[in-house]
Amino acid sequence: MLFHVTMTVRLPADMPADAAADLKAREKAIAADLQRGGKWRHLWRVAGAYANVSIFDVADNAELHDILTGLPLFPYMDIAVSPLCRHPSSVRDGDA
Amino acid sequence: MLFHVTMTVRLPADMPADAAADLKAREKAIAADLQRGGKWRHLWRVAGAYANVSIFDVADNAELHDILTGLPLFPYMDIAVSPLCRHPSSVRDGDA
Amino acid sequence: MLFHVTMTVRLPADMPADAAADLKAREKAIAADLQRGGKWRHLWRVAGAYANVSIFDVADNAELHDILTGLPLFPYMDIAVSPLCRHPSSVRDGDA
Amino acid sequence: MLFHVTMTVRLPADMPADAAADLKAREKAIAADLQRGGKWRHLWRVAGAYANVSIFDVADNAELHDILTGLPLFPYMDIAVSPLCRHPSSVRDGDA
Amino acid sequence: MLFHVTMTVRLPADMPADAAADLKAREKAIAADLQRGGKWRHLWRVAGAYANVSIFDVADNAELHDILTGLPLFPYMDIAVSPLCRHPSSVRDGDA
Amino acid sequence: MLFHVTMTVRLPADMPADAAADLKAREKAIAADLQRGGKWRHLWRVAGAYANVSIFDVADNAELHDILTGLPLFPYMDIAVSPLCRHPSSVRDGDA
Amino acid sequence: MLFHVTMTVRLPADMPADAAADLKAREKAIAADLQRGGKWRHLWRVAGAYANVSIFDVADNAELHDILTGLPLFPYMDIAVSPLCRHPSSVRDGDA
Amino acid sequence: MLFHVTMTVRLPADMPADAAADLKAREKAIAADLQRGGKWRHLWRVAGAYANVSIFDVADNAELHDILTGLPLFPYMDIAVSPLCRHPSSVRDGDA
Amino acid sequence: MLFHVTMTVRLPADMPADAAADLKAREKAIAADLQRGGKWRHLWRVAGAYANVSIFDVADNAELHDILTGLPLFPYMDIAVSPLCRHPSSVRDGDA
Amino acid sequence: MLFHVTMTVRLPADMPADAAADLKAREKAIAADLQRGGKWRHLWRVAGAYANVSIFDVADNAELHDILTGLPLFPYMDIAVSPLCRHPSSVRDGDA
Repeated sequence: MLFHVTMTVRLPADMPADAAADLKAREKAIAADLQRGGKWRHLWRVAGAYANVSIFDVADNAELHDILTGLPLFPYMDIAVSPLCRHPSSVRDGDA
Repeated sequence: MLFHVTMTVRLPADMPADAAADLKAREKAIAADLQRGGKWRHLWRVAGAYANVSIFDVADNAELHDILTGLPLFPYMDIAVSPLCRHPSSVRDGDA
Repeated sequence: MLFHVTMTVRLPADMPADAAADLKAREKAIAADLQRGGKWRHLWRVAGAYANVSIFDVADNAELHDILTGLPLFPYMDIAVSPLCRHPSSVRDGDA
Repeated sequence: MLFHVTMTVRLPADMPADAAADLKAREKAIAADLQRGGKWRHLWRVAGAYANVSIFDVADNAELHDILTGLPLFPYMDIAVSPLCRHPSSVRDGDA
Repeated sequence: MLFHVTMTVRLPADMPADAAADLKAREKAIAADLQRGGKWRHLWRVAGAYANVSIFDVADNAELHDILTGLPLFPYMDIAVSPLCRHPSSVRDGDA
Repeated sequence: MLFHVTMTVRLPADMPADAAADLKAREKAIAADLQRGGKWRHLWRVAGAYANVSIFDVADNAELHDILTGLPLFPYMDIAVSPLCRHPSSVRDGDA
Repeated sequence: MLFHVTMTVRLPADMPADAAADLKAREKAIAADLQRGGKWRHLWRVAGAYANVSIFDVADNAELHDILTGLPLFPYMDIAVSPLCRHPSSVRDGDA
Repeated sequence: MLFHVTMTVRLPADMPADAAADLKAREKAIAADLQRGGKWRHLWRVAGAYANVSIFDVADNAELHDILTGLPLFPYMDIAVSPLCRHPSSVRDGDA
Repeated sequence: MLFHVTMTVRLPADMPADAAADLKAREKAIAADLQRGGKWRHLWRVAGAYANVSIFDVADNAELHDILTGLPLFPYMDIAVSPLCRHPSSVRDGDA
Repeated sequence: MLFHVTMTVRLPADMPADAAADLKAREKAIAADLQRGGKWRHLWRVAGAYANVSIFDVADNAELHDILTGLPLFPYMDIAVSPLCRHPSSVRDGDA
């Protein structure tokens, strides 16, 4: 089941550089795992912003919640979630 | 080059049913062509809304503009455009 | 799987009374069926508004979309959808 | 009398972990008591957010106010309240 | 039980003058009855606007809903409702 | 002359408890004086919020400004002011 | 007593040209009278908009309301009102 | 050339009282000079707010920018600028 | 003197095609004249929208107002105006 | 390919003056280089604000992202990006 998620990161201006670097490194590792496992199906950067647009493919709402709240950057992100479904005009198998 | 586009359709309440059906049929045909040609890379329905989330892969801003304003439903849609680029944490070839 | 849905009805001021009455009667019949079938789990009126707050229990996003867009009043409603999941502090079996 | 309440928690980034844990533990205990007593009738997590959607069943506005402002997390929450009443299309006894 | 209600009237520009006058006369009569009966406790005009600020004193949410949706101008009003309760700093008997 | 005023209090999370208590005690004393003197005509709590809805009866805009900016909590409040006047449908002497 | 008022005019697209011209002529005549009488103290056009910024000097809220709602264009205007008072840093007699 | 400017002051809660007093004294002196020189043509307090509405009469956009950014309180103000021009219905010489 | 202007066109859905074509043709001719005369210094299309971003170079606010309100599409456009001035970091002669 | 970018700078009130000066000096140097290289095609100050309106001419979305996120002030700026294309009514070669 697909969900459209936008994440905008707002790190505090006074966060030490190494703490920020550590958070980002852990976030990147988890994002890679979730992509390889097929849960985080798409991940794009929004040009000019510290933000991303993502598509998740999960079993249900609870799994989506666990994934998002488990991200190291979760406490510093504004997150918007929209449930998606197949579009009747879609001709691509990969979008189901 | 990738763009994130959301389209929300607002047909006038008094549009005759056959005029609406004709518009939608033409929109669907064009959407299928653009998907097959690789320009309209992804197309999802937003659950509970007459709206979609799309990813376009075009040569430049002008091509995106021509595609969107050429859609039969363009006069009846609220459209939001965000330029995308590859995310440094992406591990998927298909998201470039 | 649970979804929180708010629906605000905006009928055109010039809709004939019998057309409005027919829409509402059909909406009411479908709402009753969906409640009895367990899909429309809760339905409350927002005090002072032609609006409701609802909880749907559906198999997936697609089923939610089909139910909402199949409502007779769908073309006249502003709809907001939020996916829900069990709250870790909930002690009620019925909220799962 | 029913009220729809949404609560979004915003803990300060610099709150010590044990202070946050203590707040959450006390919140959870009070929430459990209020649910068992029938005042906090429903409690759901909003997927992807540190937020909940709740239905309270109280004697009057004053009781609602006392419950909400008495929650340990109250100083850190954005709260929105909507009075509800029975929907004429509801067929469920439990929604009255 | 007290509720704060703001009502902003938006009559269609093409409503015939006598239809508008009839609506307003009926609204005025009902408002007078509700004030005399103690349900519509306060009623003020917002300066420079076709809008009012009102305080209702009703038994519960359902009575508030029935009163507001029964107003002749209801289909043409934007309405916002806030439940009130006694303020701990109030020293006036009349505000309870 | 009447004014509708809403005040939402936002005390800093790190304000010492005794400083907050002192502010609130002074606010309460001044509010009582203004109510007894007839300037602060109504004062209600908004259910579920650290906020109030008030009606002031003052000689002119300047007196309203002096009262509001003289409140001990003024630096910590979001304030919205609307000038009121008698409603043509009001039948209550007390709302003039 | 001074009030800051912004008025934005939105005439329906299908209003006949002579009806619009008549409205505007009557509005202009009344505005001139009110300026000469000292009630409409300042009147400026907002560059690039069918809108004005005005300062009214009236006896009280009720007089402001009567003036604004008596304007021929009132039904077609979005109006925002802010009560003003003398600024402690003002050195101009004319701004009192 | 005239500009409408609104300024809302937001001093940090933890600014020392003498630093705030110094800023305000310097702001007041500069405002007096600019008023006497005719650049700051009108200055009013918004009732109930730490905010003002002002009219500036400057040679061009650059002079307006230099004046506003040169104010001691500039770093602590939300500022909104609207270019004005003479209103065709104005009959006052002073508003040109 | 430079102004940044955004214009979003909203033609009524029921405007006859030839009336719309006539409006657009006249708009285009005037836009060309103003560009050649140096008043309309830049004109870009916003990708995916019936909207433009423009830079005007005019003598004063009044000239800007006359130009914008004289455009054939003015009654159908949402317009936002921001006064510009030379940026201290600009190294281009053409941006003064 | 052209992009319209607005940048609003929000430096923390407690940033040391020399740190702010260093950031601004580095920003200015990079802005000059990018203008001379043709990537930052236009740069204007918004009158009355610590903000700019800019036009970038870049190869693609990724280059725009790298430029914007590489600016020394990036962590302190609110940035809005709109893709542009040639306007059909433009007669200026420089706007392509």
